[in-house]
Amino acid sequence: MSREITGFSNPLVKRVRSLREKKHRKREGLFLAEGLRILTEAREEGVLPEMLFHAGSPHPLARELIAAMEAAGGDVIETTADILSKISGKDNPQALVGVYRDRLTPLEALDRSSADIWIVAQSLRDPGNLGTILRTGDAVGAGGLILVDDCVDPFSVEAVRASMGALFTQTISTARWEDFIAWLRQGPGQLVGTSLNTTSHYRAARYASPTFLLVGNEAQGLPESYEAECDLLVKMPMLGKADSLNVAVATAVMAYEILNQNQDRKGSAQ
Amino acid sequence: MSREITGFSNPLVKRVRSLREKKHRKREGLFLAEGLRILTEAREEGVLPEMLFHAGSPHPLARELIAAMEAAGGDVIETTADILSKISGKDNPQALVGVYRDRLTPLEALDRSSADIWIVAQSLRDPGNLGTILRTGDAVGAGGLILVDDCVDPFSVEAVRASMGALFTQTISTARWEDFIAWLRQGPGQLVGTSLNTTSHYRAARYASPTFLLVGNEAQGLPESYEAECDLLVKMPMLGKADSLNVAVATAVMAYEILNQNQDRKGSAQ
Repeated sequence: MSREITGFSNPLVKRVRSLREKKHRKREGLFLAEGLRILTEAREEGVLPEMLFHAGSPHPLARELIAAMEAAGGDVIETTADILSKISGKDNPQALVGVYRDRLTPLEALDRSSADIWIVAQSLRDPGNLGTILRTGDAVGAGGLILVDDCVDPFSVEAVRASMGALFTQTISTARWEDFIAWLRQGPGQLVGTSLNTTSHYRAARYASPTFLLVGNEAQGLPESYEAECDLLVKMPMLGKADSLNVAVATAVMAYEILNQNQDRKGSAQ
Repeated sequence: MSREITGFSNPLVKRVRSLREKKHRKREGLFLAEGLRILTEAREEGVLPEMLFHAGSPHPLARELIAAMEAAGGDVIETTADILSKISGKDNPQALVGVYRDRLTPLEALDRSSADIWIVAQSLRDPGNLGTILRTGDAVGAGGLILVDDCVDPFSVEAVRASMGALFTQTISTARWEDFIAWLRQGPGQLVGTSLNTTSHYRAARYASPTFLLVGNEAQGLPESYEAECDLLVKMPMLGKADSLNVAVATAVMAYEILNQNQDRKGSAQ
């Protein structure tokens, strides 16, 4: 179904704009993703939006997306650049805005043996960090991201943007710590945390597949009792004045080390 | 000198608040840093602000900072939480705001042999990425950050915040590409870029000290002619759908690999 909306006060425009706020996302089970690159990445994963807003983009990939939406009976809405601005909250809006259904997977539905690495983040606060960690997860072939305790909403506009589309390629679960641990201990999986309270160098340690890489809150790091639950604590060299890295950076340095060890092992087993 | 300001319309409050904008920072040669942690990091580096605003913080480190300012004849201004909010543009302001003198170092003044790693960023746009790269530079013992072409202002409030104080521990230079290359080629230094246009695995490559790690713009990556100037191009494995990492993440994965190789070399030379 294709239609046109040119009025700022159209109820649908207001409703879609409201998805910038978490409470409305939660109520509707929907979220926004913006821009040709991210929407194309989603389509390549077989995910189409429930609604697609565009301002008559001439880009071939945008035309393909619109055609795919129409073939699937999706809701395609042509509108003005001003209304796209209003929806996206930006002066220079992306030429496309999609409204997607939430993509949370229950812990119990995860197939832990499908990947060598899973990333587990605890009380993550910054949507840019969350999106960046998803993007890294995609790059290292992680199975997905498990958000423990009160993390920032992975479906916030900022997190979706920082993920550069990895939100659609990575499985995302949320869990309380107790429930995560109970699930983890039902099967194989090495829980690895980064910590200052250890002398194990992250490169000297040996990671077992599947590795569950646990990273903590931006300001506090991991609680002591969470560190105590880890099968392995490692640390990265810190030569400077500070005692910590940005959490998305630390996650990536660790994840690449785990990936490298897995690739070395598979290479030498051949 | 200690004094008290309680009026919102005080000219100094307006002037300090204006430092949130680049044009005013540039005109005054001053910038803002906020929060006890970052200001304490600066003091430990021997850097005191020109002006310090506080709202009567009882924290011992804040008292120490105020005492150090008073001993040095600095300008200490006690004010209200509301005015700190106005200066910092945040509802929950940090209890301390410092006004610092710009800290740019001319290329010619860099001692390239003082460190094994230097980070060179080209046309970086996001202040959070810039600050995060500074923080990583501190952690890996980099000599500093060289900003090439039109990068975001390293003294923006967001960049200072993301650096977590590394702005005060890392040397920062800015240069046009041509001037950077001319300077680089006057002495030792291996220019290393990350690229999709190579088959060299970043871990198989060998880095020579000092390594100048070159990273490109968030959206475009490095221009081809810049890649052509590199002594070595390497790539990181990308197992997912995307073909790039967040730039601060890619910088960190590379910088830790370079650090690891340097530490291995020094370890085996002993």
